[in-house]
Formats: sequence, structure tokens, C-alpha cells
Amino acid sequence: MSRLDPDRLFPLESRIRDLARELYATVHDLPIVSPHGHTDPRWFAENTPFPDPAQLFVTPDHYVFRMLFSQGVPLESLGVPRADGGPTETDGRKIWRQFASNFHFLRATPSQMWIEHALQDVFGLETPLTAETADSTYDHVAECLTKPEFLPRSLFERFSIEVIATTESALDPLDWHRKIQTSGWNGRVITAYRPDAVVDPEFEGFAANVEQLGELTGEDTTTWAGYLAAHRKRREFFKSYGATSSDHGHPTARTEDMPQSEATALFTKALSGKCSAEEADAFRGQMLTEMARMSLDDGLVLQIHAGSFRNHSTPMLNRFGRDKGFDIPTRTDFVRALRPLLNAFGTDPRLSIIAFMLDESTLSRELAPLAGVYPALKLGPPWWFFDSPEGMMRFRQLTTETAGFYNTVGFNDDTRAFCSIPARHDVARRVDCAYLAALVGTGRLAEADAFEVAADLTYRLVKQAYRL
Amino acid sequence: MSRLDPDRLFPLESRIRDLARELYATVHDLPIVSPHGHTDPRWFAENTPFPDPAQLFVTPDHYVFRMLFSQGVPLESLGVPRADGGPTETDGRKIWRQFASNFHFLRATPSQMWIEHALQDVFGLETPLTAETADSTYDHVAECLTKPEFLPRSLFERFSIEVIATTESALDPLDWHRKIQTSGWNGRVITAYRPDAVVDPEFEGFAANVEQLGELTGEDTTTWAGYLAAHRKRREFFKSYGATSSDHGHPTARTEDMPQSEATALFTKALSGKCSAEEADAFRGQMLTEMARMSLDDGLVLQIHAGSFRNHSTPMLNRFGRDKGFDIPTRTDFVRALRPLLNAFGTDPRLSIIAFMLDESTLSRELAPLAGVYPALKLGPPWWFFDSPEGMMRFRQLTTETAGFYNTVGFNDDTRAFCSIPARHDVARRVDCAYLAALVGTGRLAEADAFEVAADLTYRLVKQAYRL
Amino acid sequence: MSRLDPDRLFPLESRIRDLARELYATVHDLPIVSPHGHTDPRWFAENTPFPDPAQLFVTPDHYVFRMLFSQGVPLESLGVPRADGGPTETDGRKIWRQFASNFHFLRATPSQMWIEHALQDVFGLETPLTAETADSTYDHVAECLTKPEFLPRSLFERFSIEVIATTESALDPLDWHRKIQTSGWNGRVITAYRPDAVVDPEFEGFAANVEQLGELTGEDTTTWAGYLAAHRKRREFFKSYGATSSDHGHPTARTEDMPQSEATALFTKALSGKCSAEEADAFRGQMLTEMARMSLDDGLVLQIHAGSFRNHSTPMLNRFGRDKGFDIPTRTDFVRALRPLLNAFGTDPRLSIIAFMLDESTLSRELAPLAGVYPALKLGPPWWFFDSPEGMMRFRQLTTETAGFYNTVGFNDDTRAFCSIPARHDVARRVDCAYLAALVGTGRLAEADAFEVAADLTYRLVKQAYRL
Repeated sequence: MSRLDPDRLFPLESRIRDLARELYATVHDLPIVSPHGHTDPRWFAENTPFPDPAQLFVTPDHYVFRMLFSQGVPLESLGVPRADGGPTETDGRKIWRQFASNFHFLRATPSQMWIEHALQDVFGLETPLTAETADSTYDHVAECLTKPEFLPRSLFERFSIEVIATTESALDPLDWHRKIQTSGWNGRVITAYRPDAVVDPEFEGFAANVEQLGELTGEDTTTWAGYLAAHRKRREFFKSYGATSSDHGHPTARTEDMPQSEATALFTKALSGKCSAEEADAFRGQMLTEMARMSLDDGLVLQIHAGSFRNHSTPMLNRFGRDKGFDIPTRTDFVRALRPLLNAFGTDPRLSIIAFMLDESTLSRELAPLAGVYPALKLGPPWWFFDSPEGMMRFRQLTTETAGFYNTVGFNDDTRAFCSIPARHDVARRVDCAYLAALVGTGRLAEADAFEVAADLTYRLVKQAYRL
Repeated sequence: MSRLDPDRLFPLESRIRDLARELYATVHDLPIVSPHGHTDPRWFAENTPFPDPAQLFVTPDHYVFRMLFSQGVPLESLGVPRADGGPTETDGRKIWRQFASNFHFLRATPSQMWIEHALQDVFGLETPLTAETADSTYDHVAECLTKPEFLPRSLFERFSIEVIATTESALDPLDWHRKIQTSGWNGRVITAYRPDAVVDPEFEGFAANVEQLGELTGEDTTTWAGYLAAHRKRREFFKSYGATSSDHGHPTARTEDMPQSEATALFTKALSGKCSAEEADAFRGQMLTEMARMSLDDGLVLQIHAGSFRNHSTPMLNRFGRDKGFDIPTRTDFVRALRPLLNAFGTDPRLSIIAFMLDESTLSRELAPLAGVYPALKLGPPWWFFDSPEGMMRFRQLTTETAGFYNTVGFNDDTRAFCSIPARHDVARRVDCAYLAALVGTGRLAEADAFEVAADLTYRLVKQAYRL
Repeated sequence: MSRLDPDRLFPLESRIRDLARELYATVHDLPIVSPHGHTDPRWFAENTPFPDPAQLFVTPDHYVFRMLFSQGVPLESLGVPRADGGPTETDGRKIWRQFASNFHFLRATPSQMWIEHALQDVFGLETPLTAETADSTYDHVAECLTKPEFLPRSLFERFSIEVIATTESALDPLDWHRKIQTSGWNGRVITAYRPDAVVDPEFEGFAANVEQLGELTGEDTTTWAGYLAAHRKRREFFKSYGATSSDHGHPTARTEDMPQSEATALFTKALSGKCSAEEADAFRGQMLTEMARMSLDDGLVLQIHAGSFRNHSTPMLNRFGRDKGFDIPTRTDFVRALRPLLNAFGTDPRLSIIAFMLDESTLSRELAPLAGVYPALKLGPPWWFFDSPEGMMRFRQLTTETAGFYNTVGFNDDTRAFCSIPARHDVARRVDCAYLAALVGTGRLAEADAFEVAADLTYRLVKQAYRL
């Protein structure tokens, strides 16, 4: 029996469920446009088989291992590498057994749905994951991975990916992207400009990173003017590998629009490693405005991912390093934080600024009212923990009445879990169709308009907002 | 075909939908009681035809023009006047064409529903608004406006308005209200006392305004005692034109109850223009408590509208002036902010204080618990962006369990868009009936009680809370 | 006719309602496990009849009297005792008349459902409570209370209470618990360790309380070491009366993990009564971490109830004392506040820390992400105003996708209203079954899993989390 209900995520009432199903039928085969994510370009450059099932589904997926860890499963037993070089499980089968026998802890989470969808649709597996089925499911997936139709490029095509963006550091040589570009393969894999390492004075090795930025661009990045020029050159370089956006992961949504003389002084202080935490935050904020200024010239879309308290657990950071599930959302103030940037450029319709949030209380109070009036500002889809059926539904309910549909930008899968990409987009399409059907059923949207909006949310808006 | 679903906003499940329909049938013809809004008393005083359709539906409606602006439509092309005297579109037909051809940006917003309701029910138009129908709809509405049955007083009667309150500055001579009062027309149009210009030290021309307040009342408003006496006289004057409430739009919900000696000193400082931002906020807070003290004598209901960051965009303020859609909600703390006022007068059941919010996170956490215990405090209906189907439903879901129904005060349309008034009240009645039907359907309210509560929410509570 | 809909709180759509009913059928007879509450152990020790109906349903129930007070009913007329010794109503029948004739103010609140459930299921009364039925319902309940089957122990058994925890001050001699233990009755009534009076420097009589703690334990509580040793002894004493948890009611969720030398100095300052508000908060925060440290040895579960602004109304505090409905929730930051404690012990799966919240905006943003990764941290059920059908449903919707089911701990009734205990657990079971049925109906949970989870949420998780 299928693990997946064909009507999953649709409204319960039968008339509206029927309409949701009809809406979904018109969008479920549309190509995937993935403008923001973390897949590895090396996969598509080399096109060699993915390693074992645990490396594909467990070890790199912080949604999965954080939940198992919360229930007492050691990260080492899931193969998560130790920052201190300590021992960790390397036998994929053993990791998979841990995963399968604890899979029930993921009940009713998006991860459960994504994984079951991927196992069923990508690997043809309809067995539930349990301690009993651990070995047989492992064997099945492992065998699939040896076949040509499970190579990265084959899956890319099978998933109907029209375009996918990876994310690279500003200092990345983009060698894998170059290899893809020159390989003759016609899959569209583009990069995105992520300059955290060279705009955040608190980033490890900031000064050295800025020096390296100078070497890469031939600019004197010890000066503010040279530093900005280096960014401009680097952005051009990223554009030559398809980039249409930059991306910025900041602890707050703070922006600044200080006089250039102040910015110069702050930059000098940052390079010298003497910034206070407050000054570092101000510098990051100033750089968002500088990036917007550059966008007016080069057209890159500005993505702001704000509000995560990174590495909440010091012992876990020391033991396992960054990005191990200990980044926790915090309260964010977008109204005051975005004001300098919006005062500078917010009314310019040539600019595209996409704000992502981890604080749902800001949706109806701050973000929808801001996006509903500033032409430059759009709302990114629900991010991280909110990339979920309930999160998506709340997002629409809390933003549409004030910001409408057309100040949103479609879906981001934002993932490195390649096999989950079709599942993630499918969830978004289903939730949007469910929401639209309920609007029609309650007389808030004409039925014909709902079909148009469904296509807009799935396909048209993302291409427009990200200039793809 | 009608653009309006007769069952709009009712629950989807058929049994409960039937009950919602029955509940609605008992309230949809009840008279409109509109205790707070911004219609122009001149309309009812002069009773001349409304100007062209664009002046009625587009140019004054910030919900509409802010959304179109967010999608790149210049405000000038919608006829919004420039503060700097620059050129702006004056041809109503051209404005209407912009509006109609961009109307799809309002999909699923309350504005769409209000406008379609007004066009259909007030003007008999069932054509969708599009670029193609722009001219024909414009002509149709324009022609209607020339007819006697579309004069302001005719519409007032047709809308079954039992009473409507306008809002006037404390310095307003209330000439239009006098004209209405002496006209022989028996429509009940009353004023409300809005003293922001004379209680907010940061209001443009504060000192001159206070001086004028002195001239109007014959009091020496350079002294704290005279200033308070002037307010008392002015409140009496407003009462003679029907006022039953005062209204206060403050950036925060802060109240103060300082010793009179401190208040005197702060007032003197405010008059001299030397208040810091913090002191100005404290003075506004003190004046809420002073107004409550006056209410105990003269019975005016105290309305507090808090939490808007006004004029978020400096360039737009410079170009177009205030109230152009750039007022953005902010996080508000009611627990600490209202405490001085509530400590002073909160347990006095003779007093009626109505708090409005723009921060939904405070509903279940702060406002419902406060209103559920302080006899003087009631919850105003969802305001501004939250005057919407989803906003109203969340308001009930987040407040009823803790504050009940009887610490709420019915609906406010809060609008200057006269033709949308029936639509707005209709939305509130439908959402309340939908909510009540769902309570009955889930065994949380007896069916007979639901009919009583429906009438209370529509008609009885607003009259009681506003003493109408 | 029954006042209680047998399908109350179930989803409206019939197929899913059927499933909710089936799920509920499997859990509604499970024993009640009540790990946190405020019943009086004296009831079970003495087993004498409860006093009159008003003393049972009205006078001690702040949910009820706060709502009636908000509508202008004086607390004195409801028999609430005056702190200043002033007169208050003592005639149970007169109090009951006030209650019954104002019962409609509780429409659609949880209190209405709990009271109607208790009157019907415990007392066999199906008459609505109104002014007209006041005397007959009073007589009926009063007569019941004279019968042996309405004695505390009889009701305890009739309610299928497997175990109930009361809450006692660290200084309580636990005499009633001793009497229960030695009475031969086999009802399981246990205590919980509530040390607010001896860990909060702002608690009335703090220094004297700490001195008394020393006397009770034979430790020198003028020293930090002796003070901690006294806590350890006292915890052992509470354990001998069944305690499996400590409970901490703090204004904020702040924790500290300061060096012991600093803690020593702060303790000395606290004893001398010279702590600032900030230092008192830090000391309370440090004590949470000390309690966690003790938990690692003695196994007591650490419950943190944070975020209430106690005694909001000074006049009411002066007139009626504490706990009279004027404790108002406030905004809480768990991410920064819990960090010192979580950094110290959060990854230790031997520890069980249960966090309760009064700020729903933290559920999806902070608490679910924290509980979804730290093995020591679990989420307490919705507390206080959120112990309600809507509150419980929002709790599941806002936490499950990120924290799953298994980082929650079942239900707490947290009440001193003994007769409402079955009603409160019943509401929780119904809401959970409604939620689970909707998950199954939307393809997010397998039907067989839903039955297992229903039993987990009702029975298994609470026993596991509280080590019962």
C-alpha cells in the first residue's frame, strides 16, 4: 500500500477538496524552479553515483539528526562528523538502522513526508521505515544508487528541474560550475553570491578573507573603495556562472545607510578586528545597503535571511561544529531594521529585495504591511522550520490579505537533500492549492482566478522575482 | 453572474454552513451602528453629489493605492495629491483605468471584497473590474452619482445607518455638524473628540495648537490647570454635537499617572518645545490618564489606538504627506504600558476604555487577559490591516476563551470610504456568524445562545460600550 | 437534554469526525495521571465532605471570578476573602445566585465547559445555570456533597485518578501527605517541591524563610554550601512523600550559570536584602541551574513556569491579596534566557526539564526548535489561559512539525478545582484526537500511528516525562 495519500494536504470538506485536486492537477507537472538552495554543484559536474543511503538521507540532514538527538540518539551514531576529529559511525548500514528504528520520532513532521515521498517516488519503496525494514530498505536504496538512472544528472532531469541555484561563498572559485558549464550537459545549474565571510566582521578569518577577496579581484581591499570594487567584480564573476541573486544570512535584519565617511571608518575598524558586537552588526547592516546599491547596476536580487541565533549550544559547537541543528530562531524587528535600506531604495521598482523570516509574529504585523507598499520589497517563502504544511498555510493566511499574492515570490526548497526536492515543491504546491480552494469556497476568490494564481505561485512569480 | 457568493465567509462543512446562514439571517438586516470612523460630515451637511468614481473608490483609499504602488503603479497616476504641489493625475477616467487594469493585485484582500460588494450592492454592477471593463464601469458609476438616490443622505438611509460617528480634531469648529443638526434631517451623525494635535508634543504646531485651544475655550492654556479646563470645556462642546467618545492615536500604548506637580512641569516643557522623545511619550501617556479622569465626570468613552509607526518612508512623506499607506504596525507591550492607567481607574466599572491593537501576538497573551479582568477595559475590534476575514476570525479565536464575548465592543468600520460601509459591516457579521456556528458545531456554545450572541455582537454591545 | 455534545471539540467534517471519535474511544477511559496541580492534600487526608457548592465552584476559581469581576460583579459578592479583613459574602446560596445569574458571561470559555461537564457528569445536573435555576442547582449540589460517594476519596476513585501531584512550599511540613501515607488508603497522592519562597530574593520574608529552611534541615543556610545542602535534604524529604518533580514560578525564563564564587556573593547579598531587581532575577536564574544540577543526582524533574506579570493591579493586591486573577502573561525570550542552563546540562538525556509558556509567539519560533534538539528539554502543555481548546490546538499546530510529539509531556490540569479534573483531561484528550484525526485526514500521519500517538499523549508520555 502506498505510504502517500494522493489527496494529502488538501482540505477535508469534499467539495473544496475536489477543487484543490483540480487546481493541483494544473500545477503538479510544472517544472521545478529552485532559485535558492544548497545542493552541491560537484554532483552535477562529476555526475558520479551518490554514496550510500545514509549519506544521502541521514548524515547531512539536520532536520533528521536534530530530532533523533533530542530523543537521546548520539550524533556520532548517525555518522555526523566530529569537529574535534573524534570517532563517529561510518558504516552506512548501521547509521540507517539507527535512523529507521527511530523514524517514528519524526511522525507528523515535514521530514517524515519528504522522506516517505522520496523513498516512494524516487526509489519505488512503499515499506514503512522501522527497525524491521531497516536492512531491506537500505539494500534497495543502495542498489538503486548504482544504476545510471540514479546519477545526479539523471535525477535532475527526472525531477523536471528547469533551473537550480546553488549557493557559494564570495571566495569560491566556482570550479564545479565552470566544469558544468563546459561539460556540454544542458541542465541549468547556477550559483548565488553569498558574501557572509567577507561582509561579517565576526566571521572566522574576516580580515584574511577580505585580503583574499582583494587577491581574487586585483583590488586593494584594504580601502573601502577597493573593497566595494572587489565586490562588484566578484558579483560580475558570479553572474558569469548564472547568478541572479546574492544571499545574506545575518543574525538580525538590521540595515544602515550611513555616510560613506562613516562606513569607511567602520570598515577600517572591522579589518583591524576591533569592532564591538554592535559595530559588527552595523557594518553588516551597511553592507546590505551597499549590496542594494550594486544591485541597481548589476540587477542581482538581494536575499536577506535574518533572525537566527547560530550555534546556540557551545558544547555542541565545540564537538560537532556549525550547522548541526542548534541554530534557533529569535524575535526580529523588521520595521525599524529595514528602514534605512527602504528609505534609500525601497520605492525603486527596479530593485528586488526578498526578506525571509523566522519569526511568524512579524508576518501580519510587519512584513505583509511593508511588502504591501514598498515596490522593492517581496516576501520570501516560509523558511527553515516554517517550510512545512502548517507554516506555509499560516504564511498565506497571515500575509495575503495585506500583501496579496503578487508581493510573494513562490517557493524555495533551500535544501542540500537533493532527493527531497520534488517532495518539497510538491508540499508547497498542495498547500497553495488547498489555500486557494478554501478562498474560492468561502467566496473570497473567483474560481477562474484561482487557477491563474495557482500557476503564478508555482511558476511565474519565482521566475519574475528572481529574474530567471 | 453575481460577483458575490451569497454564502461567502461561512464555514465549508454543510451542516455548520447552514447554521451560519441561519444566524446571519437574523442579523444581516440589523441597523448599522458605526461608532468610530472617518466619513466627512460635510457630505451629510451639504448633501451634494459625490464627485467622480475615482474620487470615491481610488484616490482616498490607502488600502487600494498602497497595494497598487507596491506593484509599481505611481501614486501620481492614481490621483493621490502631492505634498510638494507637483503634478498628479486629475482625470477620473484615467485613474479608474489604472485601478481597473491593476485590480487583480487586490485578489483575496478585504479591499477586493468591499469594492465588489459596493459596486454590486450599491451600484448594481456585477461586471468584473478589468482593463476591458474600465470605461463601462466608470460610466455606470458616474451616471449613478448624478441621481438623487445616490446623494449622501439617501445612501445613509439606504444603508440603514442608525448612527455614525465622525472624528474631528479638538480644534475643529464642528460647523458641518452644526449644519447637520440644524438642517432638519433626522440622520444621526455625531462627532468624536480627537485631541492628538493638542496632547502630542511632537504634533506639528503643538504650542500654537494649545494656544488656539485656549482661545476657543477662554481658558489660560499656558497653565496645566487651564489646559485641563480647556479640554473639559471642549469635550462638553463635542458632546453637544453628539460625541460619546474621545479617540487617541499614539505610537505606543504607554500611560502614566504621575503626580500633578510633575505633570505640570512636563506640560510647561512640552509647550516650550523642549521635550525629548521620551518625555513627549510620557506626556501623551499622562494625557490618557487625564482623559480617563475627565471621562469619570462627563462619560466620554476613551478609545486608544496604539502601535503604528507612522510615515515609515521619509521620501514618501516628503512627496505625498501623511496617511499614504506608510504607517506600519509595530510590536506593542500593553501589560506594562496600560498599567498606570489601569491602576488608577481600571477597576471602576463606570469607565469605558477601548483598546485597539496592531500586534496580534498581544491578543491572547496580553489584551484578552487584561480585558478579562479589568471592568473598565474592553477590546476594540480588529483594526486596520486586521479588519479582514482572517483577522476577525483570529481575533475571536485568540480572545474569546479568555475575555469572552462581553468584553468586546462589536464592529468599527473606521473608514472614510462611505460606500464600503455596508460591505465592511457585512463581513464582520458573516465572520462572527461563522465563528459562532463553529462553536455550536463543536459543542462549545448552545445553539440558542449563539443567536443571542450574534445579535449582541452586531448591535447590542456596540451601543452599550459606546453609550449610543 | 444533555448540556454536553458527545462529539464536542471533534472536527466538523464527518469522515474525520468519525475517526476522531474512534481515537477518543480508545483513550477516554484511560486513568488520569495528574503530575502537576494544586489540589489540597488535606482533602484526601481528612476525607470529610466538601463545603457548600459556592466554595467548590466559585470562590476559589480565579477563572470564574475574574470574568465576573470584569463585568462589574464585586469580588466580595462572590465570597472572595479580603486581604484587609473587610466584609465579604459568606452565604453560599447568595454567592451561587450571583454566579448562576452571570454565568452567560462565561459563554464559549473553557470554564463554561468544565463547569457544565462537572455539573453533569459528577453531579448529574443537566439544567442550564441561570438566575432561574440558581436555587434548584444549589440545592442539588449541596445535597450531593453530604453523601459518602461525594467524599474526596470517593471522587478520586470515581475519577480514575492513577496518581495526582499536589504542590507544596519547600518549607511545608507535609503533614497532610504523611497522614495520607499512613492512612491505609491506597490512592496515590504525591507532592512536588516548590521552593519559590526560599529561592526568590523578592519573595516576602525571603531571609526568614531561608533561616527556617536551615532549621528544618539542620544545615547552616547562612552559607551558600549549607543553603544548597539544605535544598538537597529537603528534596529528599519531598521525595519520601512521592515527589518526582520540582516546580519554579519565575517572572522570566532567565537562567544563569555563574562561577560558584559569584553565586556565593550573590546569595550573601540576597540574604542581606540588598539585591537589586536585576540581581534578584539573576539569583533566581542561578537557582534553576543549581536545581538542575541536583536533579542529576536525585532525579527530580525540573518544571519552569515563566512569564507571568504577577499582581498587575496594586489596588486589587492590597484589597484581596495574591492570585486573584491579576497575573497577566508577558512577552518571554526563551532562546537567550534558557541558554546558560542548556549549555550546562541541556544535552544530558538523564535530565528532564519541562518548560511552560504564556507567550504563544514563542512556540514555533523558540520552544519547538529548542525542544526539538536538546535532549533534556521538553515542552509542558499549554498553561493557564492556554489550557483551552483553541490554545491546545494551536500548541499542537505550532510545535509538532518541529518538536514532534515525543518532546511533549502530555497534559497537566494544574488546578485546585477538584471536580473539574475529569473535564479538563477530557478536553485535552478530545483536542488531541481531533488534531490527530485531521493529520490522518490530510495524509500527514498513518491511521495506525494515530492510535498509538493518542495513547502516548494521554498516558505514556506523562508517566515517562514525570517518572511516575
